[in-house]
Amino acid sequence: MNIAPVTPDHIVNLGKAFRASKALFSAVELGVFTALTHGPRDLEMLRTDIGIAERGARDFFDSLVALKLLERDEVGRYRNGPEAAHFLDREKPTYIGGELDNFNKHGYPHWQFLTQALKTGKPQNGAATGNRFLDRYSNQSVLETFTEGMTAGARLVAPAIAAKFPWDRCRTVIDIGTAQGALPVEIARVHEHVTGGGFDLAPVRPHFESYVKKQGLSGRLRFHAGDFLRDPLPSADVMIMGRVLHNWDVITKTMLLNKAYNALPPAGALIVYERMIDDARQVSAPGLLSSLNMLIMTEGGFDYTVADLTVWMQHAGFYDLRVERLTSELSMVVGTK
Amino acid sequence: MNIAPVTPDHIVNLGKAFRASKALFSAVELGVFTALTHGPRDLEMLRTDIGIAERGARDFFDSLVALKLLERDEVGRYRNGPEAAHFLDREKPTYIGGELDNFNKHGYPHWQFLTQALKTGKPQNGAATGNRFLDRYSNQSVLETFTEGMTAGARLVAPAIAAKFPWDRCRTVIDIGTAQGALPVEIARVHEHVTGGGFDLAPVRPHFESYVKKQGLSGRLRFHAGDFLRDPLPSADVMIMGRVLHNWDVITKTMLLNKAYNALPPAGALIVYERMIDDARQVSAPGLLSSLNMLIMTEGGFDYTVADLTVWMQHAGFYDLRVERLTSELSMVVGTK
Repeated sequence: MNIAPVTPDHIVNLGKAFRASKALFSAVELGVFTALTHGPRDLEMLRTDIGIAERGARDFFDSLVALKLLERDEVGRYRNGPEAAHFLDREKPTYIGGELDNFNKHGYPHWQFLTQALKTGKPQNGAATGNRFLDRYSNQSVLETFTEGMTAGARLVAPAIAAKFPWDRCRTVIDIGTAQGALPVEIARVHEHVTGGGFDLAPVRPHFESYVKKQGLSGRLRFHAGDFLRDPLPSADVMIMGRVLHNWDVITKTMLLNKAYNALPPAGALIVYERMIDDARQVSAPGLLSSLNMLIMTEGGFDYTVADLTVWMQHAGFYDLRVERLTSELSMVVGTK
Repeated sequence: MNIAPVTPDHIVNLGKAFRASKALFSAVELGVFTALTHGPRDLEMLRTDIGIAERGARDFFDSLVALKLLERDEVGRYRNGPEAAHFLDREKPTYIGGELDNFNKHGYPHWQFLTQALKTGKPQNGAATGNRFLDRYSNQSVLETFTEGMTAGARLVAPAIAAKFPWDRCRTVIDIGTAQGALPVEIARVHEHVTGGGFDLAPVRPHFESYVKKQGLSGRLRFHAGDFLRDPLPSADVMIMGRVLHNWDVITKTMLLNKAYNALPPAGALIVYERMIDDARQVSAPGLLSSLNMLIMTEGGFDYTVADLTVWMQHAGFYDLRVERLTSELSMVVGTK
């Protein structure tokens, strides 16, 4: 009988994983992948393009090769790997670097205080009670990083939502907590009969409107300003709440589901998409760690399973609930009024 | 012809990897694995044992399950997985949590400044020029975290060095930069004819002596105090420099190799072990990221390949160089005088 030896490799790899995250964040921050848009660059060209010192440059670029973000050819020139070219080139509409910037500027430093968050049960980012997004959005630079991060997140999931929901059966959509509106933009782009827009706090309006205008969709998508903790929600055939409910405690979660139910017309549909934890809470490390992120960042937020959400949605009155996998991490639950 | 679709999964996983590191660090800091030494604990017992608030406890423990550090049985009790039981239980001699504490207290916060380190080429931890270990060791708590971290690192590699070098052919060993002496302790434990000790800065002495005494080896292993930047090295049949050279610039690296050569008796051997970068600098992410760690932490340090080291060792006079793989990350190069 063979017994596999116990090695420390898994533990050591986990312990050092933060270095790989930071190498990626710095590469995005410094514009490495965007600098390689127009073709390969040798060490010295790339180094001067992005403005870093000689000392760490070669190790940095070779780290990105070893992390399978860059490739290096036989004469030592670096180029983007296929994933970096698609998702990390700032000039492309598929750019998701905004989410990485958000992790770099907010996630990584706040996670420093995980132990303290666990001991106290309290957020470690100075979150005020009430709608913390109001505070966050009062700082323009924070607002920008955050809405661009949300756009990156929405881009990851929008093609699947545009493809997997029966949009031919409805005319209007409202995305609740829409940020720049990347999700309704993708739906409207693919389904030319759909109109609607997004709902978010008033300071988000210019970010939404400029993004939507750039996509040539200002005629079909408009911004609705409001605070969903105090105001009623606008109505549409389909309402979407994506990565919204996890920010809030269970009382607010169910209040928001009730508000959505009340705003919908008869036979209207609510789509909730989220990084769902598996029902057994056994394998979904990203969902469970996202929930610890809510511990660090919010007063009462937490991530949840499809089973949890099903109970809350049924309680709000939704029926005919169905689950669809969207990406390797995210799923949507659709309910009908 | 099938073309694999480009997915963002790899990028997103890298970007979130820091959360997994921090969950592990907090678990070590809070003593989760040590609390489970004597058997499984349910959520409430484990939570109160380690002193954390209710809010994040279940997500935290379930994250550790999803990260394959803990296991949870059918009645909801948590227990250590085999790797955590072996390497993360503070009561065991195989404990490597010291290295994770070191990452948690020093590595993670300093890596916050990677972009700045790349831009300037300068360390971001306030490292003074000269022997920065002198500064570090003047703070007792930093000294303790650091030497325990080094012990964890030495434990990972010591069994392989004890097994893969022909110790039957020599009588004495000196470990240069020995910290608590975990490496000579393991060699002396396995090879009962070997005597010697470790060389490090004077403030390390009590940490070495108490560790060696606890292993019952005070009669065979003694501490040699000195600063290898200024003082000659003590002599022995075999000298070891492990994870030392990467801290220094190339001038200091070669100076240290020359000093080791001069200290050795004829036919003596030098073992250099390190997280070697692959010669093509193509696949060894841990080695390349370790070199970026040196950028952040030191004035001139960098990691290197076996090919680099071979040149330096030959230049110092060593011959008959041979390489041995020690662990999945570390290798040793042995040279003869």
